[in-house]
Amino acid sequence: MINMQKRLGKHTVNIEKPVYIISTAALAGKKEGEGPLKDYFDYIADDIMFGEKSWEKAESKFFKKAFDMALKKSGKTYNDIDYMLSGDLLNQCGGSTFGLRDFKIPFLGIYGACSTFGEAISIGSMLIDGGFAQNVLCGAGSHFCSAEKQFRFPLELGTQRPPTATWTVTGAGAVVLSSKGKGPKVTCITTGKIIDMGIKDAANMGAAMAGAACDVISAHFKETGRKPDYYDVVATGDLGEVGKALLKKYLAEENIIFKNNITDCGLEIFDNEKQDTHSGGSGCACSAVTFSGYYYKQLTQNKIKRILLIPTGALINTDISQQGETIPSIAHAVAIEME
Amino acid sequence: MINMQKRLGKHTVNIEKPVYIISTAALAGKKEGEGPLKDYFDYIADDIMFGEKSWEKAESKFFKKAFDMALKKSGKTYNDIDYMLSGDLLNQCGGSTFGLRDFKIPFLGIYGACSTFGEAISIGSMLIDGGFAQNVLCGAGSHFCSAEKQFRFPLELGTQRPPTATWTVTGAGAVVLSSKGKGPKVTCITTGKIIDMGIKDAANMGAAMAGAACDVISAHFKETGRKPDYYDVVATGDLGEVGKALLKKYLAEENIIFKNNITDCGLEIFDNEKQDTHSGGSGCACSAVTFSGYYYKQLTQNKIKRILLIPTGALINTDISQQGETIPSIAHAVAIEME
Repeated sequence: MINMQKRLGKHTVNIEKPVYIISTAALAGKKEGEGPLKDYFDYIADDIMFGEKSWEKAESKFFKKAFDMALKKSGKTYNDIDYMLSGDLLNQCGGSTFGLRDFKIPFLGIYGACSTFGEAISIGSMLIDGGFAQNVLCGAGSHFCSAEKQFRFPLELGTQRPPTATWTVTGAGAVVLSSKGKGPKVTCITTGKIIDMGIKDAANMGAAMAGAACDVISAHFKETGRKPDYYDVVATGDLGEVGKALLKKYLAEENIIFKNNITDCGLEIFDNEKQDTHSGGSGCACSAVTFSGYYYKQLTQNKIKRILLIPTGALINTDISQQGETIPSIAHAVAIEME
Repeated sequence: MINMQKRLGKHTVNIEKPVYIISTAALAGKKEGEGPLKDYFDYIADDIMFGEKSWEKAESKFFKKAFDMALKKSGKTYNDIDYMLSGDLLNQCGGSTFGLRDFKIPFLGIYGACSTFGEAISIGSMLIDGGFAQNVLCGAGSHFCSAEKQFRFPLELGTQRPPTATWTVTGAGAVVLSSKGKGPKVTCITTGKIIDMGIKDAANMGAAMAGAACDVISAHFKETGRKPDYYDVVATGDLGEVGKALLKKYLAEENIIFKNNITDCGLEIFDNEKQDTHSGGSGCACSAVTFSGYYYKQLTQNKIKRILLIPTGALINTDISQQGETIPSIAHAVAIEME
């Protein structure tokens, strides 16, 4: 029954029909707009409140505006979109559900922590290749203040951040996937398993996620038969410096060696030294905004031909953490290529 | 490009290849095990802690045991399962991610509040029909105590519950979907939009969700051309008495009239008068356990032939509610039929 060309292995499927990323929108916060990628964003908010009265409402507004903008840039209307997929870090994915409630589009809410952007593109691409949709609008986002409040300490406390801590990216990224059009194509999806490295420190998400990133990258190369140099860029989501170093160590143990083509969106979006962002950027928005802003333009301008994007997610729940539990993690890899 | 037989309308797709529900598992809490459906559950926990030290850990254990049991009953092994889909009400879907972290299966986390079970079957069926998977393990669950603590009041306060309040079902339901085998088939998927009825009361989820249920039911009948009597049972997820009465009113306004074939899982799982559950059962587990336990057996024993299951979800986030916001809702309809 199953088309064996589609399924390459336990984790990986080929996307056989063309699934184009026909547009993207990258909305960033003020701090992100002062970083190295500032020229690539579609919109930079003036302040962290984005004109709203709460961080949560500001986060929702980023979603609304990013999804709206990706849709406008695609030339499509609400009626053309068959499914909308989104998720975020706010409890019950509040950023997405409140931000997108006025879009009259069938909605599939997803949750993969900061891997959400990868999961959205994965499911969206399979729905198009499977013949269920022509156009899918999907994305993810996060907000530094609401994430700190929810997962760590109230910002008003001024708690000192350890060197392993990452800085949640404020913003949202959205893409329109389509069966017709032009642009980079989603060609291959490797879906990750939940991996628990036994890390308990909510200020060291990089270490918690490095194992999940290694697992999915290793599966991707084994199941596709590709080598690391197949891609111009292999970009994890938000491991930061600490997580990236661990990932390279774990990959070396599996004899997967990269030259200079592996990076992490959390190391691209901020200048860690100048911007005091410690280990790097993180959050659902980290890979969503970095891809939608920077890498998408690198692809469409033919500066790169092939990217393996691997958004990484730490599946932390604070109640369960406070009960002494570790932080399970997950990562999803998406191959995106220009023809 | 798109197969027009698959897409029937803006919300609805046909599942063309056979997608069988080859097994289910219904795990219930003690109170649920004293209700009208007690003889249909696979396992009833002795107490609300399920042998664990916290409600959250108990909730995770329900997931682990339900998914394990559905898998065993299907005769499949972990290696046979291509994707696992799950979600729940705990912040960051902690019940699923902690409960299922030892399953070495590619995982797609989803969030649709109490509509999650419908969303899981929807995406799982499309992945099989689309040729991406042969077997998918999916489900949802919830826990009364962790939900009350998180969304309403600490149980220790003994807060009085208003008549509109529902009682979150403790338990988890899981199903194995497969391209081969026997059992009821998933034949049609109608995916809901986010609908906000302007309700602000966290103790009246039925009113918040009735509009979303009406919207997806109305779309289902319009787009399929079916009439309400096509189904032996049309079962919403957890509207309770208050929500069901509103739904019938809204449906009547659209000239969709049911005889006696419409019900709500929240009215089936508890005896509201004897069990003091006010408006009825609710939570992700409500439709998951009622379907996996009761309706699945009604189908396989040929007592009913066709069911339209419509898990309903209130997308509440307590921070945003406390900021004065309303409660957006969603519902997803899944048609399940015996040959």
